[in-house]
Amino acid sequence: MESSDAVNLKRNEKVSNVYPVLMAGGIGSRLWPVSRELSPKQLIKFTGEDSLLQSTIKRLAPALDTENLRIVCGDKHFDETARQMEEIGVTPAGKIICEPCGRNTAPAILLAVLNILKVEKDAVLCVFPADHVIREIEVFHRKLESAILLADKGYIVTFGIMPSYPETGYGYIEGGKDISYGALTLKRFVEKPDIKTAKEYIKAGNFFWNSGMFAFKASVIMNEFKVFEPELFKRMSDLVAVKETVTKADYEKLPNISIDYAIMEKTDRGAVLPSDFGWSDIGSWKSLYDFFPKDDEGNVIKGDVIAKKTRNCLIIGSERLIAVNCLENMVVVDTSDSVFISDMENTQDVKTIVTELKEKKRKEY
Amino acid sequence: MESSDAVNLKRNEKVSNVYPVLMAGGIGSRLWPVSRELSPKQLIKFTGEDSLLQSTIKRLAPALDTENLRIVCGDKHFDETARQMEEIGVTPAGKIICEPCGRNTAPAILLAVLNILKVEKDAVLCVFPADHVIREIEVFHRKLESAILLADKGYIVTFGIMPSYPETGYGYIEGGKDISYGALTLKRFVEKPDIKTAKEYIKAGNFFWNSGMFAFKASVIMNEFKVFEPELFKRMSDLVAVKETVTKADYEKLPNISIDYAIMEKTDRGAVLPSDFGWSDIGSWKSLYDFFPKDDEGNVIKGDVIAKKTRNCLIIGSERLIAVNCLENMVVVDTSDSVFISDMENTQDVKTIVTELKEKKRKEY
Repeated sequence: MESSDAVNLKRNEKVSNVYPVLMAGGIGSRLWPVSRELSPKQLIKFTGEDSLLQSTIKRLAPALDTENLRIVCGDKHFDETARQMEEIGVTPAGKIICEPCGRNTAPAILLAVLNILKVEKDAVLCVFPADHVIREIEVFHRKLESAILLADKGYIVTFGIMPSYPETGYGYIEGGKDISYGALTLKRFVEKPDIKTAKEYIKAGNFFWNSGMFAFKASVIMNEFKVFEPELFKRMSDLVAVKETVTKADYEKLPNISIDYAIMEKTDRGAVLPSDFGWSDIGSWKSLYDFFPKDDEGNVIKGDVIAKKTRNCLIIGSERLIAVNCLENMVVVDTSDSVFISDMENTQDVKTIVTELKEKKRKEY
Repeated sequence: MESSDAVNLKRNEKVSNVYPVLMAGGIGSRLWPVSRELSPKQLIKFTGEDSLLQSTIKRLAPALDTENLRIVCGDKHFDETARQMEEIGVTPAGKIICEPCGRNTAPAILLAVLNILKVEKDAVLCVFPADHVIREIEVFHRKLESAILLADKGYIVTFGIMPSYPETGYGYIEGGKDISYGALTLKRFVEKPDIKTAKEYIKAGNFFWNSGMFAFKASVIMNEFKVFEPELFKRMSDLVAVKETVTKADYEKLPNISIDYAIMEKTDRGAVLPSDFGWSDIGSWKSLYDFFPKDDEGNVIKGDVIAKKTRNCLIIGSERLIAVNCLENMVVVDTSDSVFISDMENTQDVKTIVTELKEKKRKEY
């Protein structure tokens, strides 16, 4: 379904008006004890090499001009974000857009759009969470080309991940009629389904996981904000026009609203681009385990670990020795002040532990 | 079967010629990472209160005169042993007998016997490992009285634990004819059996676990050493006669031999006293778990632990937070430099880990 237009836009012929925008505002409490308020998921070097943020930038670099890169992150993560950009040879100056507090994706995207419009009226934005992984880079680059071509035509494109199983932890996007470049019209967003509904979605074939990755023209999305979120649009436009940096007092007053809810569910310019490039949002220790290559015993082991009779486990060490014996389907994650141990299937329960730590005002939060 | 003689020897009427002797020479690598060469099992405060050594002394105190206490321990554990004695109000002066190196139980017992004979020719020794636990203290005290009465009659008494299940990890003692005070003649020692044999022992009813606890007259055991281990007897007697402290060079030359092998398997003065007082040698993390009282979920938890959906686990924390989720039948033990995680049934495999650490000359050994 890749059309000839997609081929005409040659890879490595980077388009100067395309702006990759990384959403790096999350905390990622689901990967506690490694992810923390001061050390969010996207900045962690799980593999001992690149952080998820760095991997995300490197993944885009062959296809898009990293001089156009913008990263929206929290104030307190500015320094580490800049440091990690420099570490992989990307100058941070002018590329980091700080949020004084998190207000979900709609304000963050609008903030980026308004900033980019100051330098490029004809900009196309490609928006990606900074803490996801993609295994098939070349497939991703081809989809990116298609998305940009669709955005150029005025579509607001969302990358819909072709579901490999009936996941109940994601929202789904229902696709409608064929457009071009393999894309479908965006029929509707649906909330996380129960398992029965999820199985029906898989069977239907036109339902896709909502990945939170988008491509659109700045001018097009601006218009949608004006129409569907006029109050947010006005207040953010005033803030960005008047001030270099937005204060927390101003920003806190903005609505806490996702781009899906603010725009995507309402616009008639939506398109979904079915994508199958080995995507994961690394939303749990299990998904991190699933992403990494396994050793002969099915284990993913990092750090100083002695493992005996142990299979299908994720074990991440820190400064101390971890000795495990007869473990199966388990997760062990060690940090300097905490150890987390769970069976593999229920690692998402870590949220209840993080909530308890927060309530008890413990330093490990 | 408690005879009137046993009753005549009233509890708390401590007999001045009875010497409790604690064997505290072990290292206890089976409880790694808590037990170490420099911090052996008997000196560790697993419960946060008394160490096993301290519990052993306190258990004896109501029945025997702790002024007669002797503790045989390794040179390098002298300071901590003395400190722990003082901590529970027992003066260490003159009570600690140091071994420059471990040569198993026969030399250790002979060393204690020779030292005690310097002050009390008519001594009766009650010998106990310092790293075992006993749940039923009053039953233990009654058995102790019987053992002393039997020792007074010239028997070399070993406490035979009435087996509660066909354990294959212990040696067994076969009892013969009835003597008195519930004791039987000692027919033979048998090595750790296979499961089939262990089941036969249980069925037979006259086989008991070899606990390593003894009572005998000093003069009687001296005679047996002379007869069955004349070489060891002569060399140890010379060492103790000549020197206040035995040097490592001398001690190393002694045979490495157990009291079972040196004396008990050969003597015709042996008696086995069937005992059922909730004994455990704490030979593994599982046996430590079995010994402690459980909470409502069947867990034994010490230290800073958050446990969710977790049942039948032993979790021992140290300085850091341990957060566990959906664990069953597992052991988690944390120390400042190591974490050990194992399923409950195979905690004895820790030995292979300790061996690996030793071979690699790692500090965690």
